Amino acid sequence: MRKAQPYPPVQAASSGEDELIARYFRPLATHPGALSLQDDAAILGLGADEELVITTDSVIAGVHFFPDDPARSIARKALRVNLSDLAAKGAEPRGFVLNLALPHPDHDWLADFAAALGADADHFACPLLGGDTVKTSGPLAIAITAFGAVPRGRMVRRSGAREGDVIVVSGTIGDAALGLALQRDGALAPLRAAHPVLAAHLVSRYREPQPRSAIAHLVQATFTSAMDVSDGLAGDLRKLCAASRVGARVEIANVPLSDAAQWIVREAEAAWLERALTGGDDYEILGTLARCDLPQAIAAARYAGVALSAIGEVMARDAGVSFLDREGQPRGFTQASFSHFS
Amino acid sequence: MRKAQPYPPVQAASSGEDELIARYFRPLATHPGALSLQDDAAILGLGADEELVITTDSVIAGVHFFPDDPARSIARKALRVNLSDLAAKGAEPRGFVLNLALPHPDHDWLADFAAALGADADHFACPLLGGDTVKTSGPLAIAITAFGAVPRGRMVRRSGAREGDVIVVSGTIGDAALGLALQRDGALAPLRAAHPVLAAHLVSRYREPQPRSAIAHLVQATFTSAMDVSDGLAGDLRKLCAASRVGARVEIANVPLSDAAQWIVREAEAAWLERALTGGDDYEILGTLARCDLPQAIAAARYAGVALSAIGEVMARDAGVSFLDREGQPRGFTQASFSHFS
Repeated sequence: MRKAQPYPPVQAASSGEDELIARYFRPLATHPGALSLQDDAAILGLGADEELVITTDSVIAGVHFFPDDPARSIARKALRVNLSDLAAKGAEPRGFVLNLALPHPDHDWLADFAAALGADADHFACPLLGGDTVKTSGPLAIAITAFGAVPRGRMVRRSGAREGDVIVVSGTIGDAALGLALQRDGALAPLRAAHPVLAAHLVSRYREPQPRSAIAHLVQATFTSAMDVSDGLAGDLRKLCAASRVGARVEIANVPLSDAAQWIVREAEAAWLERALTGGDDYEILGTLARCDLPQAIAAARYAGVALSAIGEVMARDAGVSFLDREGQPRGFTQASFSHFS
Repeated sequence: MRKAQPYPPVQAASSGEDELIARYFRPLATHPGALSLQDDAAILGLGADEELVITTDSVIAGVHFFPDDPARSIARKALRVNLSDLAAKGAEPRGFVLNLALPHPDHDWLADFAAALGADADHFACPLLGGDTVKTSGPLAIAITAFGAVPRGRMVRRSGAREGDVIVVSGTIGDAALGLALQRDGALAPLRAAHPVLAAHLVSRYREPQPRSAIAHLVQATFTSAMDVSDGLAGDLRKLCAASRVGARVEIANVPLSDAAQWIVREAEAAWLERALTGGDDYEILGTLARCDLPQAIAAARYAGVALSAIGEVMARDAGVSFLDREGQPRGFTQASFSHFS
């Protein structure tokens, strides 16, 4: 294998790359527009009344996942963070392209990675359309660009929240941030000792997001605004409110927590509650809708297997964005979200 | 600045990332579907009779460009290798998304990078629609996914070449491979000494591909097959022939060489001719068309400012792919194209 070098080799993708693609990724390229990954581009058609929704997210070893996380988990995370964006925009998945920067071609790793990616592509009806595989002297990096479709003009934006709307979230909040803490250090060792199954649940929520694709149509039809929670509920709600030029009031007690997160907040330290609300990587849908639509939306989401919880209300802009505790007092957070660049 | 670390920080895109995007990339996001880069996804519409063409290519420091190449050249290369694919598929550019993995946020570098990217986006009518910026402990890596449109069912594929078609290439072949040799080592020092302007031309051809977008419509309307030459003319012609299940015969004397490349082949060593034909990074269009369409195609391309040269003929599959010298003898190549993975 060629070693990393300070100067580029004679530029060329390669028979090596071609073989790798043929072996691991061509079996995933079942969509006719993928042209079996044997052309320079993919073809995607749209219905006459549809618009394309495009989202792209990169994940990098040591930044977004642990380098020794299972290849299958890495594949799922890389695709699902994008599927989560499509779901939050109310879009039906149509396909994705994969940019893979590999430090070295480990064949067992690639086989596992491709198998999990293919299974997810099937499960979420989002086929591999194309990609590019290159060698890097740095950490493993995966950039996925995913495509969805919405009726023309109907993509759900961050900017549609209206005063008086109800604020909702899907699933449970904070699991991934707590799972990361568990995976990274010993701080939550008591949970691991007392409830290994709950602990494993949290780690799995960090490693493998569950995109809420099952309620994408509901979001598209009912929500006035939406985004996925990737940078922490507190910070992301601020972004949504800024885009919509509104304020918000959230009752912390109404924010849905998993059994595991409840155990930590109750038995360990309440400081973990802040981590849950600000830590990020939830990949749940945060959105707003008219109060009159709430009961039907909750019922429809439940029918699709997704819990939807009302956590607060959209306020006038000058009310700001506040998280209230049980006494109705606004709670401040040390850090609303984290930065890789500060 | 946070140092690279073996374990991920608490996951979150970030105010730091948001500021960086707002400062450098929002000014480029002039397309209404980009939503000023302030939402989670972009929106792209298509005409009722159109299909989307999707291509994606990554470039990595130390593999596809020199780490100390100018930021402007790196931006141009990252976008243009994708525009070259769109042109070769006969597609009209509609926009792109950018995945940027940055080792550190150098503001002068980013300002130059964004300025050049924006100028190219304007020039090629291919606006920035969205993206993702992350921090990496590895080398700078840029993945761009670009979108184009063709009339439904009319993307030009690798697989349409027919026996008897003429084989054509745009521009000149081999400049980039010779430019890389110039930039990398002293082998071509005599050219640099005798003709510094020619030498600079070759280096510029390596650093900054010239996508043949000006003839995309011609390719779409006239060519039976096409691809862009990124891995060397010899290797890429083999790929095109394999996809089309045909053979090919190329007259090496008809392969268009720039003045600089001619000087090298004549004055230095003829071995450089092989480098020119196999080295890659040309980003010219290689295609086939019916012989009767050739004169008009050459004239139309010239009108668009692009030279189009007939270099050979499509043969039956069992004739194989051969490059003939002036004596009509087939010439073998030590290595038809290079691999990052072998």
